Amino acid sequence: MSVLRYDITTNDWVIFAPERVQRPHDDSGETKAGVGPEASAGTCPFCPGNEHLAGPEIFALHSVTTPNTPGWSIRVIPNKFPALRIEENPHRIEERPFLRAMGGCGAHEVIIESPDHNLVLERKPVEQIEWLLRTLQLRLQDLLRDRRFESIILFKNHGERAGTSLRHPHWQLIATPVVPRALRLKHAVATDYFDQTGSCLYCMMLNEELALRVRVVAENAEFAAIEPYASRVPFETWILPKSHNSSFGRVEAAHLRPLAEILKGTLLKLNVALKGPHYNITVNTASRGDEDKSYFLWHIEIVPRLTYTAGFELGSGMAINTVLPEQAAACLRDVHAD
Amino acid sequence: MSVLRYDITTNDWVIFAPERVQRPHDDSGETKAGVGPEASAGTCPFCPGNEHLAGPEIFALHSVTTPNTPGWSIRVIPNKFPALRIEENPHRIEERPFLRAMGGCGAHEVIIESPDHNLVLERKPVEQIEWLLRTLQLRLQDLLRDRRFESIILFKNHGERAGTSLRHPHWQLIATPVVPRALRLKHAVATDYFDQTGSCLYCMMLNEELALRVRVVAENAEFAAIEPYASRVPFETWILPKSHNSSFGRVEAAHLRPLAEILKGTLLKLNVALKGPHYNITVNTASRGDEDKSYFLWHIEIVPRLTYTAGFELGSGMAINTVLPEQAAACLRDVHAD
Repeated sequence: MSVLRYDITTNDWVIFAPERVQRPHDDSGETKAGVGPEASAGTCPFCPGNEHLAGPEIFALHSVTTPNTPGWSIRVIPNKFPALRIEENPHRIEERPFLRAMGGCGAHEVIIESPDHNLVLERKPVEQIEWLLRTLQLRLQDLLRDRRFESIILFKNHGERAGTSLRHPHWQLIATPVVPRALRLKHAVATDYFDQTGSCLYCMMLNEELALRVRVVAENAEFAAIEPYASRVPFETWILPKSHNSSFGRVEAAHLRPLAEILKGTLLKLNVALKGPHYNITVNTASRGDEDKSYFLWHIEIVPRLTYTAGFELGSGMAINTVLPEQAAACLRDVHAD
Repeated sequence: MSVLRYDITTNDWVIFAPERVQRPHDDSGETKAGVGPEASAGTCPFCPGNEHLAGPEIFALHSVTTPNTPGWSIRVIPNKFPALRIEENPHRIEERPFLRAMGGCGAHEVIIESPDHNLVLERKPVEQIEWLLRTLQLRLQDLLRDRRFESIILFKNHGERAGTSLRHPHWQLIATPVVPRALRLKHAVATDYFDQTGSCLYCMMLNEELALRVRVVAENAEFAAIEPYASRVPFETWILPKSHNSSFGRVEAAHLRPLAEILKGTLLKLNVALKGPHYNITVNTASRGDEDKSYFLWHIEIVPRLTYTAGFELGSGMAINTVLPEQAAACLRDVHAD
């Protein structure tokens, strides 16, 4: 059973989920035994035929109509070792002055990208990526209806250094009963700018980048991929919409195809330039109730995990980056991957 | 040449230091070649006899009086691949509205703990650790006199997962020309509490922990080691002074011995309990001009690097911890290491 605890020195919450210690890690086993990825598919809970290992599905795109059986193309299940649970209550507990906690209420879901154990995201057909994005959107919209949840974090971990425990390509989603402080800060900064200027900070920044073009990686009619001016890590890449919208849940259906195209194209470029890097993808989107705001632009952040954070970053919160975003963007523009 | 860039979405600075790409990493070489640590000592720039490889010393405790020659017991040198440089100017550059930068002015020093390539911190005699702490203190005090530097981050990286590039035991110090946002936040939270109550948040928290005793790991007359109530990672351990003092630079000389003792004892316990973990140590201390404040307590944070941060942490800033601090503290109390 998990619980959230309040850090009085930073005003942030920390999730305690002791049961997650027991979750399986197939990477280490496979590596040690020297067994290829095909072999491990036999016991992979995300593979077709093993639906009973993964638990009952929340949502699936099915070509046949029986739930929890093979025939699906995308499958959403509860995380078996959840950080937060939908069954818990977000009640606050404050037994003593400095010890403030709340029940581990939330949601933790796994979105299995496809039945194929070995087909990584960037190699999937654009149509499959489009359906994946649509599925992420549906789950976001559904969970935002639960008034106990404040923020929904959509993310993907690819590779051991990015925190993957199971290799079969998947996304995850965690709904939190509080707005995480880092998101609160981003929204506060953007609100401040909006109050001063009447414009969305992110839209203005993107316009500037599209005019300068030195940090642009790729572009289509609806979206642009850029290396942010103050990237925290080498080859950090953002994908932003060209028209204002604070919530990923409100992206028009017709825009999901160009989003799938630029996401696939950008990941392919990163894959070639960095020789198959481990990476995280996160979707930055408005918290519940903020979907209509004029001051935040939803976007995707891709973070290659090339380096380890060290004591300076832990002690200061500041990052040291060894690659300028202009260099990274030029390098990625030159890569022609397909 | 390095530069700082301002992240307009978070109001934080990022350091760009392209030359740091070239810095040597002895761990990988040693591991691949299967060569023991003794062999690498021959080319280690931190070993006695190789002083010419490391550059001229800033400070040293010497038993003989010739600088840059063997005979030292602790040696402080400039980092050869610095994140920031004392020769730069902290001038601001704002060419365009969203592109704010400043010169990479600061300091980046390496504190070599001892001439011994293989003697890890926790195995050193208490007296040597005491002198190391005294040296860190002297460097902090010296750099705080330079009015261009706002904050000094003292830290140690132990092991590859903690970001070590050279194995010979050492600390580092980075002086920044801005107060990092994470420190600004901690100080703001503590100031707020002080404004409301007239007390230091950290002192009150420590008193509570010393009364409850469930998260206390070790204690002596001057210091306590605890697992914080909202630890972000398993076995995160803080060492705090029992009497109020916001700056490590102002710790009385007579308190450095008990500090060395509790630091050594705590690291030995962590080493046994976690079987030689990689870890970071950071010294949290007041920024320049805040050394006399009543609202911040300087302290040491030890962060074992047992897990990788993943997409959820990157996307939300929140941590998921799988070990409750009460369990970690009980485990560490039970370890009798020496």
